[in-house]
Amino acid sequence: MNALVWPQQVTIREVGLRDGLQSIARTLPTGHKLQWIQGAYEAGIREIEVGSFVPPKLLPQLADTATLVAFAQTLPGLCVSVLVPNLKGAERAMDSGADWMLLPLSASHAHSLANLRKTPDQVVAEIADLVDARRARGSAIRIEVGISTAFGCTLQGRVEPGEVLCLVQAVLELGVDRVGLADTVGYADPRQVGELFARVRAVAGDQLACGHFHDTRGLGLANVMAALQTGETRFDACLAGIGGCPHAPGASGNVASEDLAYLFASMGVATGIDVAKLLALRAQVAQWLAGECLHGSIAQAGLPRTLHTPEVMA
Amino acid sequence: MNALVWPQQVTIREVGLRDGLQSIARTLPTGHKLQWIQGAYEAGIREIEVGSFVPPKLLPQLADTATLVAFAQTLPGLCVSVLVPNLKGAERAMDSGADWMLLPLSASHAHSLANLRKTPDQVVAEIADLVDARRARGSAIRIEVGISTAFGCTLQGRVEPGEVLCLVQAVLELGVDRVGLADTVGYADPRQVGELFARVRAVAGDQLACGHFHDTRGLGLANVMAALQTGETRFDACLAGIGGCPHAPGASGNVASEDLAYLFASMGVATGIDVAKLLALRAQVAQWLAGECLHGSIAQAGLPRTLHTPEVMA
Repeated sequence: MNALVWPQQVTIREVGLRDGLQSIARTLPTGHKLQWIQGAYEAGIREIEVGSFVPPKLLPQLADTATLVAFAQTLPGLCVSVLVPNLKGAERAMDSGADWMLLPLSASHAHSLANLRKTPDQVVAEIADLVDARRARGSAIRIEVGISTAFGCTLQGRVEPGEVLCLVQAVLELGVDRVGLADTVGYADPRQVGELFARVRAVAGDQLACGHFHDTRGLGLANVMAALQTGETRFDACLAGIGGCPHAPGASGNVASEDLAYLFASMGVATGIDVAKLLALRAQVAQWLAGECLHGSIAQAGLPRTLHTPEVMA
Repeated sequence: MNALVWPQQVTIREVGLRDGLQSIARTLPTGHKLQWIQGAYEAGIREIEVGSFVPPKLLPQLADTATLVAFAQTLPGLCVSVLVPNLKGAERAMDSGADWMLLPLSASHAHSLANLRKTPDQVVAEIADLVDARRARGSAIRIEVGISTAFGCTLQGRVEPGEVLCLVQAVLELGVDRVGLADTVGYADPRQVGELFARVRAVAGDQLACGHFHDTRGLGLANVMAALQTGETRFDACLAGIGGCPHAPGASGNVASEDLAYLFASMGVATGIDVAKLLALRAQVAQWLAGECLHGSIAQAGLPRTLHTPEVMA
């Protein structure tokens, strides 16, 4: 087996303010969220999903999303994303000045019906309406569709790769800008990740532009590596690995941003992130979230002495 | 980048009874250790490092190693290993009837001097004496040298790959049967693992026969994957991820056997292990070690519904 070629550079998108905080009952004050965005920016992060335009009654934790977008847009070169669940949310996203709206589309029929009372095809039809709405407004906002439960589902079990491919093709034909693949429940394994990313890349090309992995069963970073090897260069992550599943108490949530940043730094793959600064921010966020179930290895073990010594093979 | 070819079959060697228990202050009663060996065997594990022939004064936790070897040798097809630190230990290992003796050889001068007050070259000279002693006795015991701190060292920092290669060549020329590479302190990253395993395999061939990874900084399974991709098919692991470093409280220890078994099962790589049975044993061991810092993701999250549905791409 041959030596592998790694990308020179990858992007970590911080999604803790959305995917992380929506799974935590308490509402983090807006002031703390602004500090989080500022701190992530100062640590070198250049893409942040700051919140979601869901009805505040459903997720009061994310009710200040418009304020966060407005602040984030004052930081030069920061790419600001928001999750959007429907047409009304899309209108608010376009009003807000966000750069990207992220639309979830579950590949599992059971998950889609349970969460949204809609089949995946019905959600695709809604995405068509959102693309139309963007065109009607002449908005410059860009659209990324995240295919959730792409690697399996706690309700349905197996999800067919063919279904994922069909959904990807359908939304790209509608005119969305890019797609990502999400292991929403932590079912993916590295082999499956490598195979599905390769298959989707064959139809989506560079429009396949995000891997979103959970570390529920400990395979988060191994799955990132598998996607990286297919050429994927953008990954979602949550500071302190928040975003766990309520059905698995104590189980890990999203891949931890600081662990992912450390992984890439250790390999000499550029992220633009200062891992030590990110760890300082993590310590601050951990104080704000005291009592919540946090995760991540590097925060406990500390950076190795060798991190800043590039491992050039002699 | 091309689709990867995975090995059909790999071996997990359970080393919790040695590398794990030696880092825990309490002494697990011999009866529990026998149940652990029996349970691991029933779960399908066929290689176990049952203990170490170090002076009982130094590691009273492992003083019953001879008893454990005798019991383990009653289990058909079980390959029984013991760690051996010196000639006296080697004599006891040969007396015991163990199949393999595992000899540690630190590639870090600083680590070697701090632990053994000997340079790596002096340890190589001792290994020569052990090989001679085996020949003198006509013993059938086999010898594996584990190159510890092969990926870096908390004391010394960087460890040169060239040093590792020299040590591997030296011990193979002495007539040891095989070698392994150990990330003793959790400094390795996947790129480094892939490169060093490839370089060592170029000189050692199939005599490079073990990857020993710690999960201290969360990269344990990613590093296993990187070694697997170079053709490595034997990995050490500790049930419940015990074997942490006393200098990093709360940090993970060895790769957890049950997580590693789950990783391979999820990928369809055969280990012969029944993961559910291994998880039941882990629950038992966790009871015995109540109060100790245990690790592992799959024990908390549970097996996915899809595990027994092979992921054949449609």
